[in-house]
Amino acid sequence: MQNIRVGIAGYGNLGRGVELALSQCPDMELIGIFTRRPPETIQPAGKGIKVIPISEAETMKDEIDVMILCGGSATDLPQQGPQLAKLFNTIDSFDTHAKIPEYFDIMDQTSRKAGRISIISVGWDPGLFSVHRMMSEAILPNGKSYTFWGKGVSQGHSDAIRRIKGVKNAKQYTIPIEEAVNKVRIGANPDLTTREKHLRDCYVVAEEGADLAAIEREIKTMPNYFAEYETRVNFISEEEFKRDHSAMPHGGFVIHSGITGNNNKNIIEFSLKLDSNPEFTASVLAAYARAAWRMYKEGQTGAKTVFDVPPAYLSPKSGAELRQTLL
Amino acid sequence: MQNIRVGIAGYGNLGRGVELALSQCPDMELIGIFTRRPPETIQPAGKGIKVIPISEAETMKDEIDVMILCGGSATDLPQQGPQLAKLFNTIDSFDTHAKIPEYFDIMDQTSRKAGRISIISVGWDPGLFSVHRMMSEAILPNGKSYTFWGKGVSQGHSDAIRRIKGVKNAKQYTIPIEEAVNKVRIGANPDLTTREKHLRDCYVVAEEGADLAAIEREIKTMPNYFAEYETRVNFISEEEFKRDHSAMPHGGFVIHSGITGNNNKNIIEFSLKLDSNPEFTASVLAAYARAAWRMYKEGQTGAKTVFDVPPAYLSPKSGAELRQTLL
Repeated sequence: MQNIRVGIAGYGNLGRGVELALSQCPDMELIGIFTRRPPETIQPAGKGIKVIPISEAETMKDEIDVMILCGGSATDLPQQGPQLAKLFNTIDSFDTHAKIPEYFDIMDQTSRKAGRISIISVGWDPGLFSVHRMMSEAILPNGKSYTFWGKGVSQGHSDAIRRIKGVKNAKQYTIPIEEAVNKVRIGANPDLTTREKHLRDCYVVAEEGADLAAIEREIKTMPNYFAEYETRVNFISEEEFKRDHSAMPHGGFVIHSGITGNNNKNIIEFSLKLDSNPEFTASVLAAYARAAWRMYKEGQTGAKTVFDVPPAYLSPKSGAELRQTLL
Repeated sequence: MQNIRVGIAGYGNLGRGVELALSQCPDMELIGIFTRRPPETIQPAGKGIKVIPISEAETMKDEIDVMILCGGSATDLPQQGPQLAKLFNTIDSFDTHAKIPEYFDIMDQTSRKAGRISIISVGWDPGLFSVHRMMSEAILPNGKSYTFWGKGVSQGHSDAIRRIKGVKNAKQYTIPIEEAVNKVRIGANPDLTTREKHLRDCYVVAEEGADLAAIEREIKTMPNYFAEYETRVNFISEEEFKRDHSAMPHGGFVIHSGITGNNNKNIIEFSLKLDSNPEFTASVLAAYARAAWRMYKEGQTGAKTVFDVPPAYLSPKSGAELRQTLL
């Protein structure tokens, strides 16, 4: 059987992760990396991988079975998504929760018109966590779901700190508050405020002579990002920052507690502990790219989400093999 | 929209659990309970529920959308499965792992010929645990999965003890060994023997004057059931048994640890903590009954497993609603 031919659009942390993930999938083949940057500035991890200006994507229309979009949700995907969905089956990790319905609609129209399929919002949240929230609620409708994130780096919050005057570098860790997690784990179904669920731990490298008290105040009072949370600010040196805060760990858990029949409590928990958030997200994208190709070959078109994908489609194994070895 | 009309075949712990689960599903309606016993000996939990001899199931062919089979895997399902799959869309919890491929084939032929759908081996293991083993392996192919069961009652092992001469009653708890679990949770990917993974804790009520040492020896040396495990035997009184060992808790976890890209470790864990094993299993069956009906209405026929069911089909909510609230 011919390998699934994959393209990567965007070569940041996530795109590099996809390249590495594909190297673990013997049924998939990376055809090329598409970029807005000058192609010669890109150094793929693998030898002989083509780097192609994204403006020339159309010329590769018949050589790519699935394009994995690795741009950001704020500005890249809203523009690149519909553009590339005209030409390719696509997978993306669009994660601006509030705008998902709108993004779904435009991707759905575009893919349907092109006779292609696009699976949006793939990753772990949205993505695997969503599948768990959904399945848990369907199985135990008389119950409640909680999602906790961390310990892990929030890119958005780190960026927000870096935009403050006097800040040279910063990293923000989201940390679930253990007391809240424990209450949820025993099925107490507590009502938890934002402040009770997570704390925000910030590591900041300040510029020389900067007003540290002012920076700390500005972080702690920043609306939507920090004001609603218990926030800790730690000033550290550039060396400490490089030594202790270069990795991109993340994780979290979805806990659903529900009552069956005669007042019996049942708890479903799904958790992730990731050394590398982008590499793991990339691995999820690669598996769903496999699913997209199968669904497309079956004649399905339009936008889909993780909710629409039968688990078997993520695996290179046959149905009989899966039933025999994993059921 | 018309409710999904459901039948229950077999009214033991699982059948009773399904009745209770359906009462939490506003889009589903219990039409009748089918039994081999004299119908007048069955007392459904709900008022006005019809109890029908299973031999008359055919007369209800057009009144039931999905039949949930609640018999056991050893003798009931191999016989009732194919019989009822000729007449109805079916869901069952067939769990004799080694015989799944064979059972799948006969259910597939039968359902396909009848133009119906049958989802086999639904529950939590096989079932939800299978989905996790499968998805984890697809996402992190360079990794290893471990399944631990318990703490929970094993019906089969409890039965095996009860068959020993001099035993009046018995309950066996399977308990995961913490040291092994902890090794797996940190991603050490250990090689574990059967003995290192679980211990078997037995609570036995002996008949008056029975030879306790002989019973203990017979339990601990029973091949396949106990000989391969660390086994503890506790003799207790009938009162203690009734007071402390009447519930049917269970649970367990699937832990997959896999390496991405630059030697980064990522751990996926799914766990269940169930006060009532049969009620939870029944809730899973009810949700998959909903999925079976949708797949049947789409024109799908033949046998399916949890691997073939898109998560969205388990929920009564629309795609738009799911995307807006749970993605």
